[in-house]
Amino acid sequence: MVTLTASYEELTESSAVALAIRLGLIQESSHLTCTEIGDGNLNYVFHIFDHKQEKGLIIKQALPYAKVVGESWPLTLDRARIESAALIKQSEYTPHLVPAVYYSDTALAVTAMEDLSHLEIVRKGLIAGKQYPHLSDHVGEFLGKTLFYTSDFATNPKIKKQFVKQFTNPDLCDITEKLVFTDPFFDSSTNDFEEELREAAEALWADLEVQAKAAELKRIFLTSAETLVHGDLHTGSIFASETETKIIDPEFAFYGPFGFDIGHFIANLFLNALSRENEHDQQHLFDHVVNVWATFKEVFAKAWKEDSIEAFSVSDSFLETTFDRILKEATGFAGCELVRRTIGLAHAADLDAIPSPSKRIQQKKTALTLGKTFIKQYHAVETASDLVALFQQSVKE
Amino acid sequence: MVTLTASYEELTESSAVALAIRLGLIQESSHLTCTEIGDGNLNYVFHIFDHKQEKGLIIKQALPYAKVVGESWPLTLDRARIESAALIKQSEYTPHLVPAVYYSDTALAVTAMEDLSHLEIVRKGLIAGKQYPHLSDHVGEFLGKTLFYTSDFATNPKIKKQFVKQFTNPDLCDITEKLVFTDPFFDSSTNDFEEELREAAEALWADLEVQAKAAELKRIFLTSAETLVHGDLHTGSIFASETETKIIDPEFAFYGPFGFDIGHFIANLFLNALSRENEHDQQHLFDHVVNVWATFKEVFAKAWKEDSIEAFSVSDSFLETTFDRILKEATGFAGCELVRRTIGLAHAADLDAIPSPSKRIQQKKTALTLGKTFIKQYHAVETASDLVALFQQSVKE
Repeated sequence: MVTLTASYEELTESSAVALAIRLGLIQESSHLTCTEIGDGNLNYVFHIFDHKQEKGLIIKQALPYAKVVGESWPLTLDRARIESAALIKQSEYTPHLVPAVYYSDTALAVTAMEDLSHLEIVRKGLIAGKQYPHLSDHVGEFLGKTLFYTSDFATNPKIKKQFVKQFTNPDLCDITEKLVFTDPFFDSSTNDFEEELREAAEALWADLEVQAKAAELKRIFLTSAETLVHGDLHTGSIFASETETKIIDPEFAFYGPFGFDIGHFIANLFLNALSRENEHDQQHLFDHVVNVWATFKEVFAKAWKEDSIEAFSVSDSFLETTFDRILKEATGFAGCELVRRTIGLAHAADLDAIPSPSKRIQQKKTALTLGKTFIKQYHAVETASDLVALFQQSVKE
Repeated sequence: MVTLTASYEELTESSAVALAIRLGLIQESSHLTCTEIGDGNLNYVFHIFDHKQEKGLIIKQALPYAKVVGESWPLTLDRARIESAALIKQSEYTPHLVPAVYYSDTALAVTAMEDLSHLEIVRKGLIAGKQYPHLSDHVGEFLGKTLFYTSDFATNPKIKKQFVKQFTNPDLCDITEKLVFTDPFFDSSTNDFEEELREAAEALWADLEVQAKAAELKRIFLTSAETLVHGDLHTGSIFASETETKIIDPEFAFYGPFGFDIGHFIANLFLNALSRENEHDQQHLFDHVVNVWATFKEVFAKAWKEDSIEAFSVSDSFLETTFDRILKEATGFAGCELVRRTIGLAHAADLDAIPSPSKRIQQKKTALTLGKTFIKQYHAVETASDLVALFQQSVKE
């Protein structure tokens, strides 16, 4: 992977095709099409397809600013380097669960990768009522392997410190620090919610226990350099079908706490559950919550037994306290994610798409209650089933 | 500060003087003397003195290997860069408590700094029975200011992440990871202790609770990038007189946990207390233990109120939980330091210098007991007086 260009320029559909041909990733032919399929806000995503060979390719390019806001909101192009480096690192451990990277170029902020257009974004599928029977098996395996093997438990601490430097991601961490861990807990200008939620939001901001616990969770996010986390593992960052799962878009990757991705994934399962009518329809999500944790533990424990380089790994009690701490922190992070997806800047389509306005407000209030509960009680959680029980209790409140 | 030389070469007494003159740090004169006053093992320390002007200067140079072991034990020269960068950073907040740096040169691994030969090393002074009435005031202030201001509480998290990279210190952290947090807890070849301590050492290695807690403390050391810690704050890293204190030798500096330095300092006060005959002679050390924590808290809390950039600092409860966590972790780190200074590779002269062999063994056993107690009970400690009480209890056991 060499840099072919000296300076950044925005690609177009035709220059994206030309780049792919120049790189030998696709053959020149009269059967090629290229369509920009991204939301066109933060990145260009060019889907190049050879209709004769039936072979596709994705060229993703980071934009230097958020188009929807304009050049006043600059965004580092370095996130393209982080994303491709994270995909390559993750593929060392779970090649079947991430898109293959064919080429990356830090000057152009471009990554050429596997075409996954036969899959669908999980958030969209779940909103449409689809089921993904292997979703939590696959996400649990992805987390168990990537989080274990990139940590000090399996990567020599001297080398891991170099990875911490490589994956230092100040600009994208800053977004999370502000939009997930700060603004939703104060009356901030970035917050965005219906007037009917104001009373609940104000109660949250006045809750001293929530403040103290959210502060502690933010501190963990800021300082705990345990492992290479995906950094944005919501259901919109996962492509799936009934049999296949691919985790995409790790541009927020950095060395962070073990529980971060797990918490975000679980929170987004619960957000979807809140968009469903009854407990029967929610059961599929509850099963995923319990199973992603069980699978993560199983995969992580197997790796710990087989491949740990940490002398203290002989201590079973250390493994148990490690799991206990990860689940507790994941619960707290899930709480922050629930809060910010309800009253913060970036919402979850699952809730926003509830057709009935009164039902939508009601479910958002429940999401806030659940978020508060997770934050306040994160030290008390002991099993993934506790999380489902807290969900069911919040729905009844 | 510019690099004058392109490549590393070991200085001699005459080339050290020539360098100082070339840098304009001292004037050429017939009244200059230069003496190498380091232990000559890891670093050269040249003391240059102008007897007419009565003006001194220290030229410290890192050696590329430990002389006592030979070239088979290479040591990174990068520690000279870390040391001078840490001294400069610390002097932003506590210029009166660290030696002034006049020049640093990464190629030569040289730092030119303030001559402190009017002061004495605190460990030596304490062993000789001296008192340093302001020691804990000064160390508490040093820790309160440097640890607060280099953390996310006062340094913008984006900029702090650059400091984390700058102070990445894999080789010296590796020494601590092995010699403080690993080897003393196993029957390792680097351990070094009298045969009379074997039974106590074996009991420690077989203690599953100690193992699990030490594992957790090691994890915190490996992953918690909270603030720029000194990294080796024992009483041998402090110069003092009755009125003045200077904290030197931060070559182990890195972004680590708030409690690390405090724990090491307190452990070394207790090690000295164990070399004293009776509680009356120990009281001076106990006072320092309680006062260093009180001063740290006072200085840190004042900075938090005045200068915190963290939105959650409005929460008093967050400050209280932060102090609580720091003291608990400091206690655990103190426990590890007590253990490793007793049975690990690097001992404390305080204990080794006890003249009576039976008394020496007895006090080392007490040091081990106290270390075990601190490690096992670190979650339960609530005040610095608890630490003194645990010391007194261990002495009686």
